[in-house]
Amino acid sequence: MKLVTFRQPGDAPHEARAGVLLPFGVVDLQAAAPLAFEDTENERIDMLRVLTGDDLGISLEGAAEIVNAVLEQIGGSVDVVNDESDPNAVDLAGSISIGGLDLLLPRSEAKLLAPLPRPRSVRDFFAFEQHVAAARKQRGQNVPAAWYRAPVFYFSNHQAILGPEDLVPLPRTEQLDYELEVACVIGREGRNIDPADAYEYIAGFTIMNDWSARDVQAEEMSVGLGPAKGKDFATSLGPYIVTLDELEDYTTDDGDRWRLDMIARVNGREYSRGNLIDMHYTWAEIIAHASRDVTLYPGDVLGSGTVGGGCILELTPEAVGGWLEPDDVVELEVTGLGVLKNRIVYSR
Amino acid sequence: MKLVTFRQPGDAPHEARAGVLLPFGVVDLQAAAPLAFEDTENERIDMLRVLTGDDLGISLEGAAEIVNAVLEQIGGSVDVVNDESDPNAVDLAGSISIGGLDLLLPRSEAKLLAPLPRPRSVRDFFAFEQHVAAARKQRGQNVPAAWYRAPVFYFSNHQAILGPEDLVPLPRTEQLDYELEVACVIGREGRNIDPADAYEYIAGFTIMNDWSARDVQAEEMSVGLGPAKGKDFATSLGPYIVTLDELEDYTTDDGDRWRLDMIARVNGREYSRGNLIDMHYTWAEIIAHASRDVTLYPGDVLGSGTVGGGCILELTPEAVGGWLEPDDVVELEVTGLGVLKNRIVYSR
Repeated sequence: MKLVTFRQPGDAPHEARAGVLLPFGVVDLQAAAPLAFEDTENERIDMLRVLTGDDLGISLEGAAEIVNAVLEQIGGSVDVVNDESDPNAVDLAGSISIGGLDLLLPRSEAKLLAPLPRPRSVRDFFAFEQHVAAARKQRGQNVPAAWYRAPVFYFSNHQAILGPEDLVPLPRTEQLDYELEVACVIGREGRNIDPADAYEYIAGFTIMNDWSARDVQAEEMSVGLGPAKGKDFATSLGPYIVTLDELEDYTTDDGDRWRLDMIARVNGREYSRGNLIDMHYTWAEIIAHASRDVTLYPGDVLGSGTVGGGCILELTPEAVGGWLEPDDVVELEVTGLGVLKNRIVYSR
Repeated sequence: MKLVTFRQPGDAPHEARAGVLLPFGVVDLQAAAPLAFEDTENERIDMLRVLTGDDLGISLEGAAEIVNAVLEQIGGSVDVVNDESDPNAVDLAGSISIGGLDLLLPRSEAKLLAPLPRPRSVRDFFAFEQHVAAARKQRGQNVPAAWYRAPVFYFSNHQAILGPEDLVPLPRTEQLDYELEVACVIGREGRNIDPADAYEYIAGFTIMNDWSARDVQAEEMSVGLGPAKGKDFATSLGPYIVTLDELEDYTTDDGDRWRLDMIARVNGREYSRGNLIDMHYTWAEIIAHASRDVTLYPGDVLGSGTVGGGCILELTPEAVGGWLEPDDVVELEVTGLGVLKNRIVYSR
């Protein structure tokens, strides 16, 4: 499943509906829930509720049941049209409603937000050796021995999340950068999670852009508390959370890694290309470490850290023509996870 | 006002009521709200709602109105008894109820939780020069120049909050430490807050213990992302949030600093003594920095950082007889803010 958070035309700016993206439209889980479950009519269903699960049946499995109920209801026949922006894609000709509620919207009418607009928390790891080595080399240092002993992370600002197509307000920096990452979204509460069980705690993967102000970050990191102000102004997530069953074709034989191409483009030009399989630490090791003596909750987000070559800092601004500027468009694309696209705007 | 979160006898373990601590009891804001506001009967009122405010009148000002309504209702006469644990204190002889709801509880019957059991976020600053200088000296380094240019912080785990009297489960460490801090709780949403207006954004102060596993922290900090796993297992807050009007006697003439003694005791023995006035950065500077290009929300917590000499790392374990161990009781006391007491327990 591809889990989305979206707004319909006419929704207020603060409204956020949980949905499932199909090849030809978006299922509104709130509107369609009564097809599968009693007692849910008009109950607000947001993504945190889907991830957390509740006793009315709303959960990841519940979302799948709702989608099946919608597909059964509409039968085999829906009117579709070609999607103008992508000739290979089709879109619903119009919304499908029951009892005045739009259960299924044309994809083009749903404004996608971050799939989890309010994560419970965001941890960002540092799991790609090439990125760590390059970042340290710029300061004349080797990869520290401790990096090889455990997956290190920092907490970032989970209250400054942007979604696909959202504008990124330029913070006060002369050195704005993107970071090309994949994030794992936790779907089950756990503590001291055994690496052997860790994948049961993952709801799915999404793309993450850990926007960074390199001048602010370098200044504060010299004090020793790590990055905070240099990265707290924005983190992009999206366009959807993809459940692991959709990514089975890309796993390694031991099921521990995913072979997903990761690409960054700035104004259409390819800057970065890497692969998720190059993570030094597996997601199982990352989840085990994060949950050591600490409870993880559904809706927690764990970033992989930047893939090798996945930011301007590493490529060097000289090589690519400078840091990011207002009007630049940054697209992050990952196999199976879609494209996460944002434009930077001057807004102060 | 002293804002508390508490449980009554008979409440389920997950229940958390917002209240106001009086010299002789605790006002239950949810039970007493109908005395001051219509339409609030049986509405759940938690501390985040008080801090955020809502259109039914629940807010910091609303809490004060509810307390006044309770005092008016009970008139001048309540039966009090001496508090056994403190001969100078009096306590209500019994709960005071209206319509079957206990509006006002004896202090001894209210189990105080963290005043904000679920902060929206926790930032911890590093604002005391003596602590920074001592921490750096142990690594043979001076205070970095950047420390004097802006107040640096890191995000900590806002989902691992303990309250007064809560047991601290021993994490996997050989070097458990406390940190003696004061935290400021944000009570109003803001972005790019002017230092001149910053105090309007503070709901109040509380005591904070930023528990630290020094071996884990030293290991991870060598990688450069700052402290995370070394401090993510627990942070204590409490016993109450004290609004600034109660602390007017302790402010400096310019109103920018508070002269509050800060004391830490381990098993009754004084380990640390400092004063909040020694912060290098003012709260106004801290709030301005935190909100630069970022929105702060009611319920965000900003820690001061450790007061000079306010942890075993700085005092050295040799000088005080070692790191913390199971059964140790750590009490943090701050003028006007009460005592935050926790016992460490072995629990794995």
